[in-house]
Amino acid sequence: MSACSVAVVMGSRSDWPIMGSAVEVLEQLGVTVHAEVVSAHRTPLRLAEFAAGAEAAGYQVLIAGAGGAAHLPGMLAAQTLVPVIGVPIPATALAGMDAMLSIAQMPAGVPVATMAIGKPGAVNAGLFAAAMLASQQPAVAAALRQRREDAAAGVLAQPDPRQEVS
Amino acid sequence: MSACSVAVVMGSRSDWPIMGSAVEVLEQLGVTVHAEVVSAHRTPLRLAEFAAGAEAAGYQVLIAGAGGAAHLPGMLAAQTLVPVIGVPIPATALAGMDAMLSIAQMPAGVPVATMAIGKPGAVNAGLFAAAMLASQQPAVAAALRQRREDAAAGVLAQPDPRQEVS
Amino acid sequence: MSACSVAVVMGSRSDWPIMGSAVEVLEQLGVTVHAEVVSAHRTPLRLAEFAAGAEAAGYQVLIAGAGGAAHLPGMLAAQTLVPVIGVPIPATALAGMDAMLSIAQMPAGVPVATMAIGKPGAVNAGLFAAAMLASQQPAVAAALRQRREDAAAGVLAQPDPRQEVS
Amino acid sequence: MSACSVAVVMGSRSDWPIMGSAVEVLEQLGVTVHAEVVSAHRTPLRLAEFAAGAEAAGYQVLIAGAGGAAHLPGMLAAQTLVPVIGVPIPATALAGMDAMLSIAQMPAGVPVATMAIGKPGAVNAGLFAAAMLASQQPAVAAALRQRREDAAAGVLAQPDPRQEVS
Amino acid sequence: MSACSVAVVMGSRSDWPIMGSAVEVLEQLGVTVHAEVVSAHRTPLRLAEFAAGAEAAGYQVLIAGAGGAAHLPGMLAAQTLVPVIGVPIPATALAGMDAMLSIAQMPAGVPVATMAIGKPGAVNAGLFAAAMLASQQPAVAAALRQRREDAAAGVLAQPDPRQEVS
Amino acid sequence: MSACSVAVVMGSRSDWPIMGSAVEVLEQLGVTVHAEVVSAHRTPLRLAEFAAGAEAAGYQVLIAGAGGAAHLPGMLAAQTLVPVIGVPIPATALAGMDAMLSIAQMPAGVPVATMAIGKPGAVNAGLFAAAMLASQQPAVAAALRQRREDAAAGVLAQPDPRQEVS
Amino acid sequence: MSACSVAVVMGSRSDWPIMGSAVEVLEQLGVTVHAEVVSAHRTPLRLAEFAAGAEAAGYQVLIAGAGGAAHLPGMLAAQTLVPVIGVPIPATALAGMDAMLSIAQMPAGVPVATMAIGKPGAVNAGLFAAAMLASQQPAVAAALRQRREDAAAGVLAQPDPRQEVS
Amino acid sequence: MSACSVAVVMGSRSDWPIMGSAVEVLEQLGVTVHAEVVSAHRTPLRLAEFAAGAEAAGYQVLIAGAGGAAHLPGMLAAQTLVPVIGVPIPATALAGMDAMLSIAQMPAGVPVATMAIGKPGAVNAGLFAAAMLASQQPAVAAALRQRREDAAAGVLAQPDPRQEVS
Repeated sequence: MSACSVAVVMGSRSDWPIMGSAVEVLEQLGVTVHAEVVSAHRTPLRLAEFAAGAEAAGYQVLIAGAGGAAHLPGMLAAQTLVPVIGVPIPATALAGMDAMLSIAQMPAGVPVATMAIGKPGAVNAGLFAAAMLASQQPAVAAALRQRREDAAAGVLAQPDPRQEVS
Repeated sequence: MSACSVAVVMGSRSDWPIMGSAVEVLEQLGVTVHAEVVSAHRTPLRLAEFAAGAEAAGYQVLIAGAGGAAHLPGMLAAQTLVPVIGVPIPATALAGMDAMLSIAQMPAGVPVATMAIGKPGAVNAGLFAAAMLASQQPAVAAALRQRREDAAAGVLAQPDPRQEVS
Repeated sequence: MSACSVAVVMGSRSDWPIMGSAVEVLEQLGVTVHAEVVSAHRTPLRLAEFAAGAEAAGYQVLIAGAGGAAHLPGMLAAQTLVPVIGVPIPATALAGMDAMLSIAQMPAGVPVATMAIGKPGAVNAGLFAAAMLASQQPAVAAALRQRREDAAAGVLAQPDPRQEVS
Repeated sequence: MSACSVAVVMGSRSDWPIMGSAVEVLEQLGVTVHAEVVSAHRTPLRLAEFAAGAEAAGYQVLIAGAGGAAHLPGMLAAQTLVPVIGVPIPATALAGMDAMLSIAQMPAGVPVATMAIGKPGAVNAGLFAAAMLASQQPAVAAALRQRREDAAAGVLAQPDPRQEVS
Repeated sequence: MSACSVAVVMGSRSDWPIMGSAVEVLEQLGVTVHAEVVSAHRTPLRLAEFAAGAEAAGYQVLIAGAGGAAHLPGMLAAQTLVPVIGVPIPATALAGMDAMLSIAQMPAGVPVATMAIGKPGAVNAGLFAAAMLASQQPAVAAALRQRREDAAAGVLAQPDPRQEVS
Repeated sequence: MSACSVAVVMGSRSDWPIMGSAVEVLEQLGVTVHAEVVSAHRTPLRLAEFAAGAEAAGYQVLIAGAGGAAHLPGMLAAQTLVPVIGVPIPATALAGMDAMLSIAQMPAGVPVATMAIGKPGAVNAGLFAAAMLASQQPAVAAALRQRREDAAAGVLAQPDPRQEVS
Repeated sequence: MSACSVAVVMGSRSDWPIMGSAVEVLEQLGVTVHAEVVSAHRTPLRLAEFAAGAEAAGYQVLIAGAGGAAHLPGMLAAQTLVPVIGVPIPATALAGMDAMLSIAQMPAGVPVATMAIGKPGAVNAGLFAAAMLASQQPAVAAALRQRREDAAAGVLAQPDPRQEVS
Repeated sequence: MSACSVAVVMGSRSDWPIMGSAVEVLEQLGVTVHAEVVSAHRTPLRLAEFAAGAEAAGYQVLIAGAGGAAHLPGMLAAQTLVPVIGVPIPATALAGMDAMLSIAQMPAGVPVATMAIGKPGAVNAGLFAAAMLASQQPAVAAALRQRREDAAAGVLAQPDPRQEVS
């Protein structure tokens, strides 16, 4: 069994600049993360094996990023009961709209929790996964609460928009 | 504290024919659900009060359905750390595409788990919420597993598409 | 080994009113067809099994119809080298645009031949499959040629648009 | 009570390069402006407080810019009767289309006056706010009239498009 | 000078079922309204005349509804300094998306306050116009406040979505 | 040589309910019209023949309506120098947006004059064709002018939108 | 009366890099062109005056380019019977899609001949205008024919795509 | 008869940077390819001639790339029974969405196998063509199988996404 409660997978190594944000957020919140390239289209057997073993590996949440036809999140969700969060990657000429629809428009029966397109979505995937763990991990709950308070404080401390963006 | 671990809220009573599916799925899985109309635009104070009290009320997941500008899920998520699942309702001339973007395109920091547009999304919101509870509620986990097995069995028992759709 | 050179699969029995047109066209052209409901999301194991056995079963072309996230064609294509034709089904509020993007925007490496949305696409999937078989099956080639000549003749015989549409 | 009759708020300091145009236009027309970062998602309490106090602060118009899910204008409008003008910011991969729909598709009961995407919309928000004040502030009315005459004169003075664009 | 402080114009008499809602809302709030069909494309001279005389007629706000290319609101705004609110009418195969873009995407210099597509937009146009008048007409301000309180009360009185939609 | 100065062609007899409006408008204006079903996809040879003979047949304008991939107007334009007007037909699940892009987005070198989607576009194709003929046919010019005056008069005679739509 | 048979107008001097192509094409074909900035929104009176005088000035075709809400072509067409060709300019965040819909979706009664977005559309506007003049100006007809033959010859002379693009 | 079993054609030499990928893939798989610029709009006669001769030339598959209105694939398919694969080129302001719809939305009767927009689509066109040949050319089948195994192995050998993308 893995020491990690969250796995972040992505369809291609080129998705890392975006999906790395999910990993980074989770690690900042004290969650250990397994990261792996699992391609729905190039390694469907590995995908099936990964999904089938997700529960036994101890993953409580899966985060999957993919662009274009973006089958990875949905095919994971079809093969495990561990909740899956999907992040649409803007990897084609259609700016991620294709990936968003491919991830969000799942049929009744197999949910995928879709986040925003690109880096904001990857950050939020990390935060949502942490929130799912928070009910059982007080330290994660506290870190999340702190992060949100810091975000508010950051705005409130400098409410004048004329100041330079750092 | 409420006896319900999930609350299903919606922007208008007219969303019930869709959002009722989320309630129905959860009840079938043995999860008790609180359902309420909370309008981001007509009752913003109730929204703030509801969000502020969500944790104390014992809700572990919130499901929010909304159409058009669809601010309800995001504004809930901005005011509580309880995870929020959003369901885009096709309530305008734009077939729910407006609601999907308003719900999914949340900025980094405040995630909403977006489901498909309309009834499939409402069903899946129920299933996703149940999956979030499953790690702590073995009966829910078992019911989810059974439901999925039944879905597969339903297909496998009648793989011939020429048969009448029941 | 199956006696059929083409298999037509679909994600749900409710896709039959559209996908049946592919079967009908092929049978009119003298091609025997296997038809089956195979759901990427509800029966992923059956999907994997079906794809793995497609070549041995003697299928030379697979036709797959799906709506919404529409993962069926792409996941078949990822698990077999038998060519896959995809038909986007207009099954959601988005009129099949979601399915078209989910099917067409496959990443480099795993092609799916995408047809038009809905019934015209199903008819054309049958015709394209037949055209793929035609180089080896002269009778199919002849039937295709005849069908096309008939279509032209149908227009040329009644070029006056004021005549009633039958 | 504030000395300003217009407040320009925005969801993030990074919106300033666009929203600054609204401030600039208003100041050119002789209207004093309060500018502040108020985030619907990071500082919802400040948003509620700001909206609740808007009337007492003497604001006659609020201008709110936001990108992505863009809840700021609508949530302001839900919490004050001071008219709200919304400016969609192109802050995501979707070029501001998400923000436009999130701002414009408000439900019956809570209007937001939506402007064009980006800088033209910010300029126009300033002009529209000034026009709202003009009935009571003759100097603003005169300045608006002058600005419009200048714009016409600018075109009429150099109607030959072959001349270099300055 | 007209006795009306608001004029509601529309491109075609067939827009009345939608634009009538703007008139109705204003009359409920105690605002007298002039209503007229003014077509940007069929009666451009009447449009110019109407715009030129709007100020003298005593109109403090103009509401203009139009579908398709929807030039009416923008051309009014180009020919008067009286503020113009635009309502996109879903009159073509594109469900009002064409009208929304034609109305909202005005260039810097000539603002139009765009509302939602269709009836909700017409209602909100009426409410926004009333809010513009409210600073000078206490009775309108009071009526607006009452309407909003009633809307909230309506939700709060029946927060249970299972109750029948009346 | 044909006695008709305009030819109205369409991809399918089922386009007649829309394209018939172009014919009707032209006949009302005193222009004789040739109408024919010419399918780019089913009768490409007839298309080539028709285009090649258009000039000799005396056609001064061609009007072509087509839905979906809608190649008819562009392929006519590629094979004759007689000006071609294209009418997008809403014949698929995409409401004519596919046809509009297929007709309008012609490459530099081969213009097609695109009209609105559906019946308004067909009417306008007739009017535009007539306007092209008007410089040489005073009667057509007079009829066009009369029609436009009648349209204006129709609006001006009943400017009150509350009157029933006839 | 002007010596020019075509006028090319545009909403802003910044449209010249695109609309200049229309002028250039026409001049290459031997057509003299009047070019002018006429803004529907900044100079509506000049627009009305220009349209009203177009016939008397001897213009046989008007070409109008505009971006965003793009009212120029339609408002010209509403105020003259001289045929108007519209060119959508990609001047906003929406890549010209807003301008295309604003120009193409004209209501029945007032046609605008819409071309492709941007430079290809400007070139084609020039070619279409020339084709409209060709029936009366044999030299223009000959130049058009030559241009088309040259285009074909250019492709046929170097059909090998591996050769460098000049 | 040509020695090539596949022809790759494109509307313009400027499409080569994308369409060259189809040629490259096929040559890597041991398939000889004929490549040619054939423009539906500039060289329609060559298109007709090419299509009419495709079967006799020994082509078993045609691959056609085109942007914008993108008539090339469909017009080829209308004039030969050799199967046609279409590749949408992102050549306009609309990022290839126009080309995708123009290629995919073919009417019932004349199929075109549509691939993804741009380079991934060109690569997949090559792979799909090879798969069509594979049943008769064991070496191609083996090369395809090897390529797919290599792709999987490439992922499996470096599943850690933190490693640099080469």
